[in-house]
This record gives sequence, structure tokens and C-alpha cells, in this order.
Amino acid sequence: MFPYLKRGTKKMKIAVDVMGTDYGPAEIIKGVLQAVKEYGCDAVLVGDEDVIKAELRREHEENNPHVTIHHASEVIEMKDHPGISVKKKRDASIVVATDLLRQKECDALVSSGSTGAAVASALFGLGRIKGIERPAIATVIPSLTGATVLLDSGAKVDAKPEQLVQSAIMGSVYAESQLGIKNPRVGLLNIGEEETKGNEQCLATYPLLKANPHIHFIGNVEGRDINKGTVDVVVCDGFTGNVVLKTMEGLGSAVLEIIRSAVKGSGFLSKFGALLMKPALTEVKRKMDASEYGGALLLGVRAPFIICHGSSKAKAIKNAVRVAIELTEKDIVGKIGREILRDEESGEL
Amino acid sequence: MFPYLKRGTKKMKIAVDVMGTDYGPAEIIKGVLQAVKEYGCDAVLVGDEDVIKAELRREHEENNPHVTIHHASEVIEMKDHPGISVKKKRDASIVVATDLLRQKECDALVSSGSTGAAVASALFGLGRIKGIERPAIATVIPSLTGATVLLDSGAKVDAKPEQLVQSAIMGSVYAESQLGIKNPRVGLLNIGEEETKGNEQCLATYPLLKANPHIHFIGNVEGRDINKGTVDVVVCDGFTGNVVLKTMEGLGSAVLEIIRSAVKGSGFLSKFGALLMKPALTEVKRKMDASEYGGALLLGVRAPFIICHGSSKAKAIKNAVRVAIELTEKDIVGKIGREILRDEESGEL
Repeated sequence: MFPYLKRGTKKMKIAVDVMGTDYGPAEIIKGVLQAVKEYGCDAVLVGDEDVIKAELRREHEENNPHVTIHHASEVIEMKDHPGISVKKKRDASIVVATDLLRQKECDALVSSGSTGAAVASALFGLGRIKGIERPAIATVIPSLTGATVLLDSGAKVDAKPEQLVQSAIMGSVYAESQLGIKNPRVGLLNIGEEETKGNEQCLATYPLLKANPHIHFIGNVEGRDINKGTVDVVVCDGFTGNVVLKTMEGLGSAVLEIIRSAVKGSGFLSKFGALLMKPALTEVKRKMDASEYGGALLLGVRAPFIICHGSSKAKAIKNAVRVAIELTEKDIVGKIGREILRDEESGEL
Repeated sequence: MFPYLKRGTKKMKIAVDVMGTDYGPAEIIKGVLQAVKEYGCDAVLVGDEDVIKAELRREHEENNPHVTIHHASEVIEMKDHPGISVKKKRDASIVVATDLLRQKECDALVSSGSTGAAVASALFGLGRIKGIERPAIATVIPSLTGATVLLDSGAKVDAKPEQLVQSAIMGSVYAESQLGIKNPRVGLLNIGEEETKGNEQCLATYPLLKANPHIHFIGNVEGRDINKGTVDVVVCDGFTGNVVLKTMEGLGSAVLEIIRSAVKGSGFLSKFGALLMKPALTEVKRKMDASEYGGALLLGVRAPFIICHGSSKAKAIKNAVRVAIELTEKDIVGKIGREILRDEESGEL
């Protein structure tokens, strides 16, 4: 019932911004309720009080002692400019939730609204870990042998070589701490394996990664390596990472759509075959299902900050809360801080 | 038998560089022989004469009057530096083949060796179409409604905004001419739909595309739109395009691999189901099979220049020869030249 509560540790409290998502607060709240039940944590639902209350009533959970409501009167929409709106809409749910985190009224935060607004809110509200130039969003991508961490998937579109090196360090900490990969292999996302390949950014970053004693750099990797399981941490700027993620998403849905219509358009035998194959196809879906990994993590800010896809369903939110608990227990923020410090000190020798 | 030969037109002659590919000259030559038979064209096989002769003998085609051999003593390998090696290895197959094209001893060229070497050879050997700053590789990607042209997929890793605008024009000509799409919709590959989204390159390119009267610009598109069929021409720099293509390739193989092992590991029913579903799955494979589209086209140089994937099989080569014939008949090079001129003139008004 309380798998994450060790003797003597205090009960985790996770803040969840329930506003500004594609499927509305109902889906988010459903996921949070499942998480509270399954992981034995407390949750603070941040957003429009009336909406949240109505939803809790509908779920017959209005008296759940582990769920509290924190009202926020404003919402940052997907179309809003992230930087401007987190400064202007001081009572926006993501700003209020970040504030709870800053004041240590909760241990971690789960957001599934505008990614840009979440990043801006974390930067202004929490600040960066000492030594970190730029936070990066780390996304766990299913691979043939387990999972690969891709970062940055959208926190900072243009990145300097030194910032990519910091991403490599943060990604390594994350892969080791969260995925249990010892001495994770780091690859630079590029268009060829050779050191001489790539754009200016890659050419400048390669030697820095190669020279860094704290990074297990295996060289350049290509788009086709991400799902292969031959690399654990894939480093790129936020523009490239975001394009990669969305390309995967698009190709995945296109393939499913074509299978669906091919099966539909074909005869009874094909339909029967699809039925028989269902266990195998379910296995594929399970293996490639990003929602199992519970959202992306904003690395480099001063508290655990999970960013879910705007179209997250209850299951993804539940898993995001689990990841938030795990990352807090594993002190990912402290570990990153120590690694960056160690890296800076060794650079000064 | 000769579907591409109109009354009065001369017989097409396509030069094919058979060296430096993943599967060796045999696979390439097999594809060329199929194309010669099916499309009624002539072909010049460029590469090591002994190797080519042996291969033709093995296929019992050593006396085929439509196939000639042009000896080239050197090969540019994948690991060679493209720019340096096309200058140093003057008798490399790709350099010799390009020279045949320059001297109009053939109408078009098909290559499947190192992409970098092919681009360098085309640039030095053929030169750019007047007004074109940088050539771009256009790749046809299967989509839910047909196909999408992605460019640049690797000719120039870093691109200036003006070069992306030229890519949009070239891609539009290609989509209209080759895929039969009237007034093709052009999208800028970005990380969000809004004009304010993206890296410096995108922010600078958007207004130029928007203002250009010769481009049917529909705004920013995201990675997930490429396969959807909601855009006809997707413009990006060569780094991003290459990462996108290889990501698609990697995800595709990973999904197939997981399906295969899931079916293998599961019971008889699943295997039986897979058998029954085969027609539907074949349909999926056919729809998503990039080799149907016959390679990528290097747009912006002074003659039709097709670049195939290094791992192309006979079928892909055959289709590449078909595309080479079509593009020559449709005078894609002349059309691009006229569009670029028109664009320059309207800019001077």
C-alpha cells in the first residue's frame, strides 16, 4: 500500500497543476487519485477550485484526506507566450504550483500544460542548480533493450557546446539514478559517426565531451540509434530533441492508422488474424508506450519538476507522480548539483 | 516495353555509380538491369570494369546492348572526407560518373555511395543552377494521404534563412512536377505552430516564407505532421532533415523487431494470427516503403542527380532509375532555374 514510504521518512507531497491540458482537469485528477491510492503519497491539486471540487465529487473522493486543493484563478494557455505570461499571470496554476514547490510546501511538481510555461515558471520560480547554465528536458524513450534518455527535448532551442556538456552530465545522473544504468553511455546526436561530421554545434561539442573525464562518451550517434538500445543518453539541443520526439510520435500514429485501415479494409481472415495477434500487439504497445515512463523531467532546476505531454491520460499522470516520488527520494537535484560541482572543480585543476 | 519513350524523343541514358555501397555492386547492377528491361532506357555502369563484367556475366547479361561499362579505378568510401576525396581521387567512380553527366554523355545520374561525396562531386563537377546558393537533398516520405517531400535531408547541415526559402521553391517544383501536387503546401519544420516559436533560424525564416508570393506557405509544422499528409513540402536544414529521416528509419526497424520477437515468443495462435494478417501487414509495408519512391534527389545542381541510400537493394535502384528518367523528361532542372529566376526578379520590383 505504501511502497515508497520507508520507516522514518516523511510522507511525500506532490503538487499537480491540473489546468491547461488537452483532455481537461478530469483526466489529470483521475490519474492523481490513482497515484495517491497506489503509492501512498499526498497530492495538492492546483487550479480552479470549483472545477477540482466538482471533479472530486464526481469521483466520490471529495473527502480523501490525502488530496488537498490549492486554488489558482488563472491558466496559461498553449497559445500564450511562456516568458511573458508567467510574469503577467501571477495567479496562473503553474506559477502557483511552482511557488508551493519553492516554499517547500510540496516535494515535487507534475505539470501537463504548456511546456514553455512550465520551463519559464521553473526558471523564474525555482532557479537553476548552482553551476547549471541552462536546464534541459530529459525524456525517456523506449528502446529494444530498455530505455534511452534523450535531452534536451525542448527547454532551450539553441544550445552552446558547454550547455550540451552539462546536459550530458545531467542525463548521466538521471539514467544512473532513475533507470539503474551503471556508467551510462553518452552519445552526441549527429548525422554521422565520424568526429568530422555534423553542424557547427556538433563539431564544437564533440571534443568537449571526449575530453570530459566524468562522461562516458561513446561518440556520435544517429537518429536510428535512439531506439536501438546501443546508447543510454542521447544529447542534442532542444530544437532537435523536440523534432525527434514529435517525429516518432507522428510515425507511430501513422503506422497504427495504416494497420487499422488495412485490417478494416481487408477480409474476415485479416480481422480474425488481428484478434489472434492481439497479445503480441499489446506487448509491442506496452514496450513502446512512453506513458509507462511517466513524463519528462526538467533537469537543472532546484527541485524535482516533471513535465507531462499536454495530451497525457490518467495513466501517464499516475506514472508521472510515481517518478516525482522516486526522483525526490533519490535526491536527483542534489546529485546533479554535486556532479556539476565536481565537473567545475576538475576543470579548474 | 518502352513506356517512357515518346515518339521522337531520344533514348534516355542513365549513369549509375555502382561502387561504395553497403551491399556491393551486384545489388546495384541487378536493379539497373531490371530498370533497363522495364523502362527501356540505356545505362552506363561506372566502376571497376572487372567487377562489373563478372557481375554481368553472372546475370547472363554481358551482351546486353543497352548496358555499357565505364571504368573507374578508384572508390570513395563512407569514411573518406567528401570534399577532399572528390578532389584527390580524380578517378573515383562518383567523380567519373559526374563527369559523364557534365559532358552530356548521359541524361541523369544515380548514386548510392557516400552521400557527402555525391554532393561534393555534383557541386564541383556540375555546379549550381544560376541563382541557387546551395543545393538541397529532397526525400519523398510516405504519408497517410500519399507522400511528403522533406528537404534538406543532408546536403548542407547549417542553412541560412534565404537558403531555406530556395529549398521551399525547389521542393515545390519537385512536388508539383514529380508527385503531381498542384500548388503544394509548404511548411517550416519547427517545434510549435506559432510564428514566435523556434530557434533563431526558424524565427528568421518564417517571415521570408510568409512574404514570398511564389510559395504556398502554410506556416510552421511539427515532426508529427510529416507522415500525416497535411503538408506537401517540409523545409528544414540538412542536419535536422537527416536526423528526422534516420529517426524514422530507427523507429521503424525497432517496431518491426519487437513485433517479430513478440510473435515469436508468443503461442501458436499469435503466429497463426500473424499469418492471417499478412496481407494487411504487407499493405502497411508497401505504403511505408521509402524504396518505392526511388531515392532522394539533389536539387539545385545543373543536371538530374539521384542519391540513393547506401543500403539500397535492387528494387530501390530500379525505382531510382525510373525517377531519373521521369525528372529528365519533366525537365526539373530547367523548371527550378526558371522559378528561381522569377523569384529573384519579383524580389527586385
